[in-house]
Amino acid sequence: MRQSNFFMPTLKETPADAVAKSHQIMLRGGYIRQVTAGVYAYLPLAYRVLRKTEKVIEEEMAAINVPEMQMPHMLPATLWEESGRLEKYGAEMFRLKDRHGRETLLGPTHEETFTEIIAKNLKSYKQMPLQLYQIQTKFRDENRPRFGLLRGREFVMLDGYSFAASREQLDKQFDDEKSAYEKIFKRVGVEVRPVIADSGTMGGKNSTEFQAPAAVGEDTIATNETGTYAANLEMAVSVDTFKQEPEALKDMEKVATPGCESIDQLADFLKVPATRIVKSILYIADEQTKVLVLVRGDKEINEVKLTHLLDCDSLRTAEAGELEKITGSGKGGVGPVKADYADKIVADETVKGLYNVVVGAGETDYQFVNANLDRDFKVDEFADLRVANEGEPDPVDHLPLKFTTSIEVGHIFKLGTYYTEHMNAKFLDQNGKAQPVIMGSYGIGVTRLLSAIVEQHATENGVAWPKEVAPFGIHIIQMKMKDEIQSKIAADLEEKYAKYDVLYDDRNERAGVKFNDADLVGAPVRITVGRDAADGFVEVKRPTDEKAVKIALTDLDDFIEQELD
Amino acid sequence: MRQSNFFMPTLKETPADAVAKSHQIMLRGGYIRQVTAGVYAYLPLAYRVLRKTEKVIEEEMAAINVPEMQMPHMLPATLWEESGRLEKYGAEMFRLKDRHGRETLLGPTHEETFTEIIAKNLKSYKQMPLQLYQIQTKFRDENRPRFGLLRGREFVMLDGYSFAASREQLDKQFDDEKSAYEKIFKRVGVEVRPVIADSGTMGGKNSTEFQAPAAVGEDTIATNETGTYAANLEMAVSVDTFKQEPEALKDMEKVATPGCESIDQLADFLKVPATRIVKSILYIADEQTKVLVLVRGDKEINEVKLTHLLDCDSLRTAEAGELEKITGSGKGGVGPVKADYADKIVADETVKGLYNVVVGAGETDYQFVNANLDRDFKVDEFADLRVANEGEPDPVDHLPLKFTTSIEVGHIFKLGTYYTEHMNAKFLDQNGKAQPVIMGSYGIGVTRLLSAIVEQHATENGVAWPKEVAPFGIHIIQMKMKDEIQSKIAADLEEKYAKYDVLYDDRNERAGVKFNDADLVGAPVRITVGRDAADGFVEVKRPTDEKAVKIALTDLDDFIEQELD
Repeated sequence: MRQSNFFMPTLKETPADAVAKSHQIMLRGGYIRQVTAGVYAYLPLAYRVLRKTEKVIEEEMAAINVPEMQMPHMLPATLWEESGRLEKYGAEMFRLKDRHGRETLLGPTHEETFTEIIAKNLKSYKQMPLQLYQIQTKFRDENRPRFGLLRGREFVMLDGYSFAASREQLDKQFDDEKSAYEKIFKRVGVEVRPVIADSGTMGGKNSTEFQAPAAVGEDTIATNETGTYAANLEMAVSVDTFKQEPEALKDMEKVATPGCESIDQLADFLKVPATRIVKSILYIADEQTKVLVLVRGDKEINEVKLTHLLDCDSLRTAEAGELEKITGSGKGGVGPVKADYADKIVADETVKGLYNVVVGAGETDYQFVNANLDRDFKVDEFADLRVANEGEPDPVDHLPLKFTTSIEVGHIFKLGTYYTEHMNAKFLDQNGKAQPVIMGSYGIGVTRLLSAIVEQHATENGVAWPKEVAPFGIHIIQMKMKDEIQSKIAADLEEKYAKYDVLYDDRNERAGVKFNDADLVGAPVRITVGRDAADGFVEVKRPTDEKAVKIALTDLDDFIEQELD
Repeated sequence: MRQSNFFMPTLKETPADAVAKSHQIMLRGGYIRQVTAGVYAYLPLAYRVLRKTEKVIEEEMAAINVPEMQMPHMLPATLWEESGRLEKYGAEMFRLKDRHGRETLLGPTHEETFTEIIAKNLKSYKQMPLQLYQIQTKFRDENRPRFGLLRGREFVMLDGYSFAASREQLDKQFDDEKSAYEKIFKRVGVEVRPVIADSGTMGGKNSTEFQAPAAVGEDTIATNETGTYAANLEMAVSVDTFKQEPEALKDMEKVATPGCESIDQLADFLKVPATRIVKSILYIADEQTKVLVLVRGDKEINEVKLTHLLDCDSLRTAEAGELEKITGSGKGGVGPVKADYADKIVADETVKGLYNVVVGAGETDYQFVNANLDRDFKVDEFADLRVANEGEPDPVDHLPLKFTTSIEVGHIFKLGTYYTEHMNAKFLDQNGKAQPVIMGSYGIGVTRLLSAIVEQHATENGVAWPKEVAPFGIHIIQMKMKDEIQSKIAADLEEKYAKYDVLYDDRNERAGVKFNDADLVGAPVRITVGRDAADGFVEVKRPTDEKAVKIALTDLDDFIEQELD
């Protein structure tokens, strides 16, 4: 491609509203332009990276025999009514009516669409195991789109679905997809950590996220240094090392704690460590169930874990007025003693094994001291309901947890039969009995992956694209367009190396302009054809090299082969 | 790809609601499934054809140095307000509001989006000529979606745009695109006719449609047998061979013609040929201008030509009550004499050179006879405003016009400066003067093209895909899955011919099922591995062959090479 024909509007200044490095580089390099909030045009440079990324995905999916297809973007709302997700999905779903008034939506994901096709077209166990995928534009009306392609309202995603007649088939499908995903991320040059992720009610091993560490990530992962444990902070488990020495149980006593609302304030006022305080927070699950949740004073409640324990769709803490109305107490005074208003009392495991603790007295500005589990208050269910903290021991090798911000670039998930039961996708098993198909779902944020690549491969003035996804493998820069020898050599190289995808800067621009643009193009190999070309020499530079190096044209093949094959 | 892993739900029966042959085959073969009216899922077979078609397009666009990119699907309504098309586009546009209430639309086409990007990023004549294109899903809320992929509400389109600093640059761009399109259609195996098409107000040479003759086409093209003339019927010109012998002008006279509303009735009643009658029809342009249109009684008015002459956005005939109110007469009596209510009187050229004609008398059930142009009524403007008829001489070589139904698969168009002027997309020319960029637009209906290919290549029981777009180049059918020799040979062939894309039917199905499915897959080469495999023989069959032919495995390379290279 001749650069004079190429559309790559570079910017000298970094746009003020771009915070993420990847966003800045993609705007400066003319990769993308915003068309409306969180909605981008992929200009030719970005489109080339996108297509090459898709090609890697397609090759790895073909390698595990998964056919590609394409669902529509526009879906009838009735599909989502069947699955029960239409209203649950909320404001993030773009909805519209067609000219006949039919409720329509723009697909944010496609579990329903695939389940429906399977329900109508798959009848027998003989047709399974079956896997399918698509690479497609998705739509989610994010409240706060940000960081360029990292969190947009219109984005490209790979979404795959597996259909199995048995749990064993599902396990094999899941493992195949997992290893394909690992290859994909490796080939596109992104360092990822597979981590334990939120998996609804199905347990940790059924859901894996691929997290790419990056300064601008919206997720936090908790890992130990040997890599034997890695989890999304939402799901991270840590070992609680605190042990209270056994004590004789004292009589429970009500004390005034005027103005104390936080654990710190209480600990100060009562002169006790936070570990002697039990925090009580009232949650409302599914807008109806009142759940009092207890955790030791030095820990925080993890609402993802709590949601799983309660198996609820919505969860929130009680609001100020509501809290007082239900419990008879303001925030600081809520406690588990005689909390008959609660439909259920659950506690983190840290609440076990404590003696003579402080709990809210059910009255604003009052606490009970010397309260004791089972004697003074009861817990219906214990579970790990706390947020893990950095430095705490991991649950596998008891090494300190380290936190890293990262970008979720993929997620694979054993769905089970939720959708197939709701949408009646059944097959006849070997005994002729109708069974719900067992599903898995698999996703990669393709445009988000572009951001992750740039985050991990940014250079001082641009980017160093990994060779498999670089928009161009070779960037030829001719210094003087009027020099016929240079033109001849540049054009010859362009032709000779065509298979690597060559961008040939044939513009009548100053060298500085050309080099700045080249930093933004980030081709793995830059060849400068200048003054020495007549003597059989050019210069080569990799994006991460400090300086270009003079090389004989006769040695160029070896260099290119080494860099690009 | 092993067929046991492939998702291709074939149907034994032709679905009753599928009228078009291509629609029937694509449903029966498990190529597509409707998700909602006019909105289809492209299952793996169709998706493979789609991607191969796109690859052909991408290669031919790269060959003329046009970079690919991708605009968003969701667009802000403000963009279309700028161009003035937001309301004009009407009910075919899908519109929605985002969570913040912002007016949003789903792109039916992208002139605005490209013009806007150019307006913001292209500043100088040095950056032109520039061409760009995308292959993308488009959305149009057709009132009556039909014929499968032929007229859908969500479909894939190539849309390209060119930007030029001069008319000469535009002409070159247009010619390049035209020849690239011709190569594309040739490679995907569709016979097309480039025809003169509706081009707004810019004249015939500025707009070419690529029409694929097919039984189910929604368009009609008028061609002569040597191919020197070809036009969409909307724009087709014919030579009028009628000549009236000169006569002395007689006095005009009003006569009663009770109940005569049509030309046939009038001609019968007055005993004159239709060629002696001038038909007058009142049109309302842009809901305000009253235009009386005259045409000789044996011809019909072509509203596309009329729209161009009037340069109006909307055009309709006056409704019954309205007509009477404006003209004082019902349908049969409207005429050009003293038609002062008309803002303009225009006539087809057939109204010239007539003597003593019949025209409406401006009164229901009355006509003037012996009316004469200029003496009794005036015409403000003459033009070709009539529909061409089959058999009339073409305007180039005066050969009889032949009509063919066909599918519009492509359209290239010199847009000029309409959008760039409305959206202020200006560049500085060599003299530093701001000028509007000169645009062209270029389109191929990609999913529609799939229908056209199938329409033109349907066989009795399926389709014979042209090799460049066949979902698979080779279909290997193993007769007995438990036969180890067959399995070995089939697997060897699968590996050996992998580069041609092999589908290997490894299912435990009866031969009849396998062959029926193979007819629907339509691979250019089918290889049956059966009983004779042990002796070194297989059978080969092309979709258009009556019977399979036995061939030695040692001769297979030659056959495959000949068919597929």
